[in-house]
Amino acid sequence: MRLADAPTPAAVLDRGRLQANCERMIARARAMGTRLRPHMKTLKSAEAAKLAVDPLHGGVAASTLNEAEYWAGHGYDDIQYAVCASPDKLPRIAELMRRASRLSFFLDSVEAARAVADFAQAEGVPLRVWIELDCGGRRTGVAADDHAALLEIARLLDPSPVVFEGVATHAGQSYGDHPIEAIAAVAETERSVVAGAAQALREAGIETRGVSAGSTPTATHGRSAEGLTEWRAGVYMAGDLYQASIGSQSMDDMALSVLATVIAHDRARNQITVDAGGLALSKDRSTSSLAERDFGYGLVTDVLGRRAFGRLCIVETHQEHGIMRSAEPMPFDALPLGARVRIYPNHACMTAAAYDGYLVTDGGEEIVDRWGRTNGWS
Amino acid sequence: MRLADAPTPAAVLDRGRLQANCERMIARARAMGTRLRPHMKTLKSAEAAKLAVDPLHGGVAASTLNEAEYWAGHGYDDIQYAVCASPDKLPRIAELMRRASRLSFFLDSVEAARAVADFAQAEGVPLRVWIELDCGGRRTGVAADDHAALLEIARLLDPSPVVFEGVATHAGQSYGDHPIEAIAAVAETERSVVAGAAQALREAGIETRGVSAGSTPTATHGRSAEGLTEWRAGVYMAGDLYQASIGSQSMDDMALSVLATVIAHDRARNQITVDAGGLALSKDRSTSSLAERDFGYGLVTDVLGRRAFGRLCIVETHQEHGIMRSAEPMPFDALPLGARVRIYPNHACMTAAAYDGYLVTDGGEEIVDRWGRTNGWS
Repeated sequence: MRLADAPTPAAVLDRGRLQANCERMIARARAMGTRLRPHMKTLKSAEAAKLAVDPLHGGVAASTLNEAEYWAGHGYDDIQYAVCASPDKLPRIAELMRRASRLSFFLDSVEAARAVADFAQAEGVPLRVWIELDCGGRRTGVAADDHAALLEIARLLDPSPVVFEGVATHAGQSYGDHPIEAIAAVAETERSVVAGAAQALREAGIETRGVSAGSTPTATHGRSAEGLTEWRAGVYMAGDLYQASIGSQSMDDMALSVLATVIAHDRARNQITVDAGGLALSKDRSTSSLAERDFGYGLVTDVLGRRAFGRLCIVETHQEHGIMRSAEPMPFDALPLGARVRIYPNHACMTAAAYDGYLVTDGGEEIVDRWGRTNGWS
Repeated sequence: MRLADAPTPAAVLDRGRLQANCERMIARARAMGTRLRPHMKTLKSAEAAKLAVDPLHGGVAASTLNEAEYWAGHGYDDIQYAVCASPDKLPRIAELMRRASRLSFFLDSVEAARAVADFAQAEGVPLRVWIELDCGGRRTGVAADDHAALLEIARLLDPSPVVFEGVATHAGQSYGDHPIEAIAAVAETERSVVAGAAQALREAGIETRGVSAGSTPTATHGRSAEGLTEWRAGVYMAGDLYQASIGSQSMDDMALSVLATVIAHDRARNQITVDAGGLALSKDRSTSSLAERDFGYGLVTDVLGRRAFGRLCIVETHQEHGIMRSAEPMPFDALPLGARVRIYPNHACMTAAAYDGYLVTDGGEEIVDRWGRTNGWS
């Protein structure tokens, strides 16, 4: 089948771009002397993981327990659920460890550490935990300078059978609109916070094997991985307008787009409507903070993904309608009713989640494969 | 199972509220002398449709062909795909008509009408079409005052075997932040545009049976349905913060919420994090235009949906993290790690789409049923 014949909207993955993005990050991590743990939260696809996982390492990161179960079902053992797990999730984690013995998860508090230690002892389950540090992203994690709390938590995790995996952090602030130099500085903060935490633990006599950090911007622009055992990153695989706009990748690296069909013309209002709206593209407006790099709800290209229409964007969405409007003359003749376009999204993680799989291309019109993905939480 | 024991995040439907919302709209349409065609784009659930569909009418509206196929599979025959269908979708529509003979769809142009007439004649399929009018929503539809275009399109649809269902419109502008009086005026515009179009067609000798209009705000506040044969509305079933804020419903009518779990405390930053982030709540920020009625990414309530925490909102989302922050003291003690909350969303249509089903309650902690829903496009 060709892209022109597929039902729309649909998510399209360019396999060549995906593969190049994956190979570049694997090579970069190796060159920096650390291991890459690809965060599969964006694509959530076993076929994509085959390209993303470094065979010398083998681990993946997940953002939900549903994803972790999916990876266990696909034979992965070293699965890091890179989110603080509340105590009620421990039975599900213990159950999953029967299939993925190295499943690990995050926590960031004394309360959580107590619950984990109690559960592990009561059930005899060797729960594997990372202590999350906050290096400035202000999301979750022990404050970077609060080594007292860090030590208190680590000591609570000491009783057998808990396995203390190490320390982890994620510099969410690297997603800001920074010059490359500033991203490199954020990467250095990310690195030094978590490496410093590991050092503090070791000085206190607590064995700390794992030191995990990363995000697509910091893994791309960081100058050192000293003291780290692994980098976690994810969105680089798919790429998106936001990552291209902040300098993580180029526009030509974007591997994920939405195939859509022109459903209406309005010459009086100089607008063209496609069948990809708020659900198909997501309501993510992350590029709205980027001034002249604001791409509305997505950049419109031709069916091959070529930027044939300049900066033409989806500027308005309804549930199943995406509207292109421009001060320039609209390409009514190039895009008649029924014409196919590809729309590059602001934020690949949000957009990909609307689909249960991908149409895979090698850059041409032919659909060369179809890959599934997992979604949801249950 | 109780809400406290379900995996989170999960979508919760309060059956009593849903039923009351459905009964109110059915009664209102009957009192106004028109028929209700519930737009199932929000809940996409056969169980919900049993409450929403007026047994005296029986029809539903759908926003995707996937939904239309779902309704056909659940025995519905009068299914209106209330979106302009591009010519490439006609084979799929014709195929579906074998299972739902009264499936109909929208178009708004001479080009589409020609394609429909050609396909119907070539394939011998009695395609059923509505001409969409634009009554000010500026989305799709023939301009309200362009009766010449309207007549030209209708005449193209004349050749047998096409079935001309009638005219339809949707006042998307009713979703603005208006006083009730202004919504009533929008409803009158919506009504008069489509009723006037029907009259113009009839005066030109074109039989026009169906006259379809509606949205939740206009169906709620419209003063007349004269000349209409049906109202379409959808989001009223679930309700959401946006509809409550613009006066379509009260806060106590909201039937859809997201069950989430507290996963982290940060007392130094006065923030609590739950496991419902941008994917679980959607990135919809429609209430951001409503000044003091801006609810961030959702209003946080207790596990029973009671507004126990004042105006506490999710103010920041990451993919799987939702962060509550406030100038007020945070309810750390009432919401320990592992505590369950319910989060009411800005826009029910966007939020519900992240889930493959609903946990159904009767207002208590017990999960009394589980309902499926359809998603996607293929």
